[in-house]
Amino acid sequence: MGTNPAPLERLIEQFARLSGIGRKSAARLAYQVLNMPAQQAAAFADAIKEAHARVHRCSICQSFTDKEICPICSDAARDESVILVVESPQDVAAFERTREYKGRYHVLHGLISPVDGITADQLAIRELLVRLQDGRVREVIMATNPTIEGEATALYLSKLIKPSGIKTTRLASGLPVGSNLEYADEVTLYRALSGRGEL
Amino acid sequence: MGTNPAPLERLIEQFARLSGIGRKSAARLAYQVLNMPAQQAAAFADAIKEAHARVHRCSICQSFTDKEICPICSDAARDESVILVVESPQDVAAFERTREYKGRYHVLHGLISPVDGITADQLAIRELLVRLQDGRVREVIMATNPTIEGEATALYLSKLIKPSGIKTTRLASGLPVGSNLEYADEVTLYRALSGRGEL
Repeated sequence: MGTNPAPLERLIEQFARLSGIGRKSAARLAYQVLNMPAQQAAAFADAIKEAHARVHRCSICQSFTDKEICPICSDAARDESVILVVESPQDVAAFERTREYKGRYHVLHGLISPVDGITADQLAIRELLVRLQDGRVREVIMATNPTIEGEATALYLSKLIKPSGIKTTRLASGLPVGSNLEYADEVTLYRALSGRGEL
Repeated sequence: MGTNPAPLERLIEQFARLSGIGRKSAARLAYQVLNMPAQQAAAFADAIKEAHARVHRCSICQSFTDKEICPICSDAARDESVILVVESPQDVAAFERTREYKGRYHVLHGLISPVDGITADQLAIRELLVRLQDGRVREVIMATNPTIEGEATALYLSKLIKPSGIKTTRLASGLPVGSNLEYADEVTLYRALSGRGEL
C-alpha cells in the first residue's frame, strides 16, 4: 500500500476539505464508508445530493429551508421588529429551544476570522442590511459566540448598523447558570460584575 | 426553524452514523456541504459512490485496494514468512514510511472492544487464520496500538495462533524517540525499563 488506491484517495480528499476534519480523520472516515454495506454508502451519497438539491438558504433570514421562505420568517405571529443575528442555523435551534424568543433571526453562516481567511464579504451581511432598509426593524441583537471572532463580528456589524439609528444589542456575558464561581475565568467574572443587575 | 428541513436532517443523520462524529459535528458538516458550490457537493457524493464501487478489501491482507490483490501482497520481493497485523490501512502506510519492514501485512479493520460492542468475529481474523494454514508463515507481529483494546486484541490473537507453532511477537513498548523522561507516564517508563536492551 503506502499510497491508497486513487478512488479512496479522492474520497479522503473530499472529507479533508471539510473544515474541522484533518487528513487523518478524513482517512478514518473514508475507511468507514468503505466498510459500510453498499446500500448505506449509496444512501449517504444520495443524502448529500438530495440535501444540496432541495435545501437552500431562506431568502429572508438565510437559514436553511426546503421552502422559499423558512417557517419562522413566514410565521406572521413572530415579531418582525427584532432580529437576532447568529453564526449558524444550529444557533437558531438553540434559541428556539428556550421558547422565550419571539422575534426573527438572521444567519451569517460564519464569523469574521482573519486567521482562517474569512472576511466580512463571505458572510450573509449584505442580506441583513437589506432587511434593515424598510424601517420596520427597531432592534438587532448580536448573538454571536463570546469568542474573539464572535465579538469582532458583533462589533463590526454594530458599527455598520448604528448610523441607521437601529438599536444594536449584545447577549449578556456572565456566569452560566449552575456554574461555580471558583472555576470561572477572570474575564467572565469581570463581565458578570460589570454587567450586574439590580435585585 | 427549530427542526431542520427533512433532506438536511437526513444528511445530518448520515454524518452522525460515522463513529467519532457526534450529532453537533454532524450538523456542522452538513451545513458545510449545503454551503458548498453544487459542483463540489456532487463531487463529494460521487467520490463516496465511486470509492465504494471500485475499492474493496484485498483478498489476502484485507487492506483496501482497487485491484483483486493489493500491490504489497502481489509484490514477490516481500517476505511472505512474516505478517504484521494492524488495526487499519492507515497503520500499513505508517510502517511503509519507515522503509524498514519488508514482510507482509494483515489489516483487522478494528480492535476488540466490548465497550463499543466490537467482538472478534467483526474483525478480519478468520482471513488471517486462513493465511497461516499453508505453513509458509513463521512469524506474526502484533502491531496493534499499545492501548487496552490493542493489547487485548494482540493477546487474543496470539492465543489463537500459538497452538499452530507459529511465533507471535509484539511491538516494543518504551520511550518514543525524542521524548523527555520527565513527561513519560509510569507504565511507559516501566515498560522501557523491563524491556531494556544491551548496548
